[in-house]
Amino acid sequence: MKRLTPSDAMFLYGESREQMMHVAAMMPFAPPPNGHHDSLRELMREIRGAAVHRPWNLRLRTPDFLWNPLQAWVEQEEVDLEYHVRRSALPSPGDERELGILVSRLHGHHIDFHRPPWEVHLIEGLDHGRFALYVKVHHSLVDGFSAMRILANALSSDLDELDRPMFFSIPPPARAPRSDGEGGIHFPELLGIVREQYGAAKSAVRAVKKLVDSSRAGDHEFVTPRQAPKCLLNARISKSRRFATQRIETARLRAVAKAANGTVNDVVLALSSASLRRYLQEQDALPAAPLIAMVPVAVRAKDEEGVGNSVGAILASLATDVADPAERLAAIIESTTNAKHMLQGMSKAAILQYSALLLAPSMLQMIPTTAGHIRPTFNIVISNVPGPDQPLYFRGARLEASYPMSIPVHGQALNITCASYAGNVCFGFTGCRDTLPHLQRLAVYCGEAMNELEAAVR
Amino acid sequence: MKRLTPSDAMFLYGESREQMMHVAAMMPFAPPPNGHHDSLRELMREIRGAAVHRPWNLRLRTPDFLWNPLQAWVEQEEVDLEYHVRRSALPSPGDERELGILVSRLHGHHIDFHRPPWEVHLIEGLDHGRFALYVKVHHSLVDGFSAMRILANALSSDLDELDRPMFFSIPPPARAPRSDGEGGIHFPELLGIVREQYGAAKSAVRAVKKLVDSSRAGDHEFVTPRQAPKCLLNARISKSRRFATQRIETARLRAVAKAANGTVNDVVLALSSASLRRYLQEQDALPAAPLIAMVPVAVRAKDEEGVGNSVGAILASLATDVADPAERLAAIIESTTNAKHMLQGMSKAAILQYSALLLAPSMLQMIPTTAGHIRPTFNIVISNVPGPDQPLYFRGARLEASYPMSIPVHGQALNITCASYAGNVCFGFTGCRDTLPHLQRLAVYCGEAMNELEAAVR
Repeated sequence: MKRLTPSDAMFLYGESREQMMHVAAMMPFAPPPNGHHDSLRELMREIRGAAVHRPWNLRLRTPDFLWNPLQAWVEQEEVDLEYHVRRSALPSPGDERELGILVSRLHGHHIDFHRPPWEVHLIEGLDHGRFALYVKVHHSLVDGFSAMRILANALSSDLDELDRPMFFSIPPPARAPRSDGEGGIHFPELLGIVREQYGAAKSAVRAVKKLVDSSRAGDHEFVTPRQAPKCLLNARISKSRRFATQRIETARLRAVAKAANGTVNDVVLALSSASLRRYLQEQDALPAAPLIAMVPVAVRAKDEEGVGNSVGAILASLATDVADPAERLAAIIESTTNAKHMLQGMSKAAILQYSALLLAPSMLQMIPTTAGHIRPTFNIVISNVPGPDQPLYFRGARLEASYPMSIPVHGQALNITCASYAGNVCFGFTGCRDTLPHLQRLAVYCGEAMNELEAAVR
Repeated sequence: MKRLTPSDAMFLYGESREQMMHVAAMMPFAPPPNGHHDSLRELMREIRGAAVHRPWNLRLRTPDFLWNPLQAWVEQEEVDLEYHVRRSALPSPGDERELGILVSRLHGHHIDFHRPPWEVHLIEGLDHGRFALYVKVHHSLVDGFSAMRILANALSSDLDELDRPMFFSIPPPARAPRSDGEGGIHFPELLGIVREQYGAAKSAVRAVKKLVDSSRAGDHEFVTPRQAPKCLLNARISKSRRFATQRIETARLRAVAKAANGTVNDVVLALSSASLRRYLQEQDALPAAPLIAMVPVAVRAKDEEGVGNSVGAILASLATDVADPAERLAAIIESTTNAKHMLQGMSKAAILQYSALLLAPSMLQMIPTTAGHIRPTFNIVISNVPGPDQPLYFRGARLEASYPMSIPVHGQALNITCASYAGNVCFGFTGCRDTLPHLQRLAVYCGEAMNELEAAVR
């Protein structure tokens, strides 16, 4: 038995009919050179008798009482792999659109807490003999960033390695690191701080007060967050999801970043900004003031030596009030540069505290009784997670892309998470279908914005 | 705006993470003579612009507050048919097993109350060019028996009628009859009475007391229900569903019924009994006392003239303690005959009151606070619903069978509902996947029991 940390329990408290606290990845694969159309069916047969290691064999002790203060993870003796690993198929013509529709639908279904809270879907029927995996994990079991790392670890960099077990059959490392210090962005660490505050304070309102007080009292580096404009992105959500993707070569992003004297991350923000601006304009819903994004960044604190890797969160203007693409990018770069400067002048502890404070209001939205009543200090979270550079294979099939799917909550109806993989940046737009009609346009506009931006900085 | 009746509201109160109060039908179709593999895709295109009539355009006024005492149905101006009508596909080999797995999964997903609470899935990829419909409706909008009638009405008895609109595009009849008096079993009427009692009494416990009191005081025909044995069928349920089907020619059922001097319904009970007995024995879980089934029947009340068609519910012994198939059938016939005799000696009002009393405990189970604390007076509900005799077509494709999918609730983990169609009786076994492992065996055993029974009565 393993008691839940306050941080993990937080994601159970948030779970409701409309808010589903699971993350996922959508991973299309090229057909293996010697594969045949029934290889997924054979994989299923093989999987049926496979071992299931921690944490994939853990389930909640009281699934009917999610709010149980003594909630714990217990080991399930026999994991019903026929339940957890599922085969699905796309209707004709099996194109990207159909794949998007299916995973949007899968992402809108609740996890069953009477079992270990994860699912894998093997999706066949994609065009050109391709297939896809959709892997879903509840955030109370494994955070999204760790899940992405575990998934990458279960794939092989060797085309010819055909017998690597599925991720749930790989024994955990002797000591599971929650943050690996390898230059990644330690979002979980950051979330952990906010959530520990909730755990200690027992009441959400007192928790926020405590965060604000400690920031004010102990540390004069504290800066009041900018006020984000009212926007339809910050409405209550309903149950259905829509997911859209875009993939852009890192080399293209890097070229634009270099020309504009910014970072790849700045260009990611500029593309998100351009597509949001166009999408909101079409609906006559673009606020006059620029949208504010909360962006996790890696910075060096003033008390760190050498190459620092503290994680922090900054608030950046998306400059959605600027019409010209090049000027918009310049405004974004100025905003992120200032925000990072401010962070770098802080101690490591202050960075964490400040960043946690920024996150707090959106965490509060997760609690049903406060949902929709707190004005967010930002309009959207945009994350860019570093991933593996080399191509990965699953039983000889090449992973084409790896799209992260995140969690819309009340007050944050859209999430943009990007992951880099093998020379590309994979954009995942996860949103509430009702709050954001035709969300897939955001992905299309994002691709078109890239062309615009290249033309503008040339 | 249309206020919910207490009866409809009841099904909202019962809705929870584990209890989903929707019913469904699974309908496989033979390929149309001139159909091609993309005809479902074309159908989707056609449907997109279709009209949506009542009740299919109604949604809850406060979907985030299901228990709202002022809950009402409101018309949704624009129904998002791309949401409600979905395409799905079976993975290879597209056989009955894969179809069963897919619809089991679909039946375990919650309805979205932010929209009209229904869904249609067009399922392609069945073997031999076949396809299937899975139609799901929340019981608060339309009860299962009305839904089956509406679906049948949307199909054609004419192979060549290729332009009949989908069921949601057919305008409702001038006055929608809740019970049509055509010899069907008026289960909705019966449920209505129990649910009105809840509505009037405002508390579930007082409602049952009132039912018992009125039965005792006003009517000496009241007979104490038999005590059902404890059985694993009567456990709490979890979120996942399993659905299994069996189809048996009515002529075979009729021949056995005739030989044993019983009814087709008695043979349906005997088949259910045989498969339950074998299934429970395998798990070392067969109670010593016979299982008790609650069975809706059509009877003639003593104050009715001519051919009566009052609906009633009887408690019948399934004689699961009897090893010999012929003796078991005889015991069941004796039990149902006695129970029907008793009903026929009552007035119409008394039949309804008595039947409602039988149903009451299982309705109570639906309310989360009482779930699992009330000992059921029966172990399972087995219904046999009359359906159309002649073959029906959907755009030239012949409906092969129509399997009803019902609602497992806490305390009633399995439901058996049968529907007759074109010379067959279609059995639908709907259960909780966790409470009843390998539920599909029930369907297999049911088929084998038919052979046994034929041999035994010969």
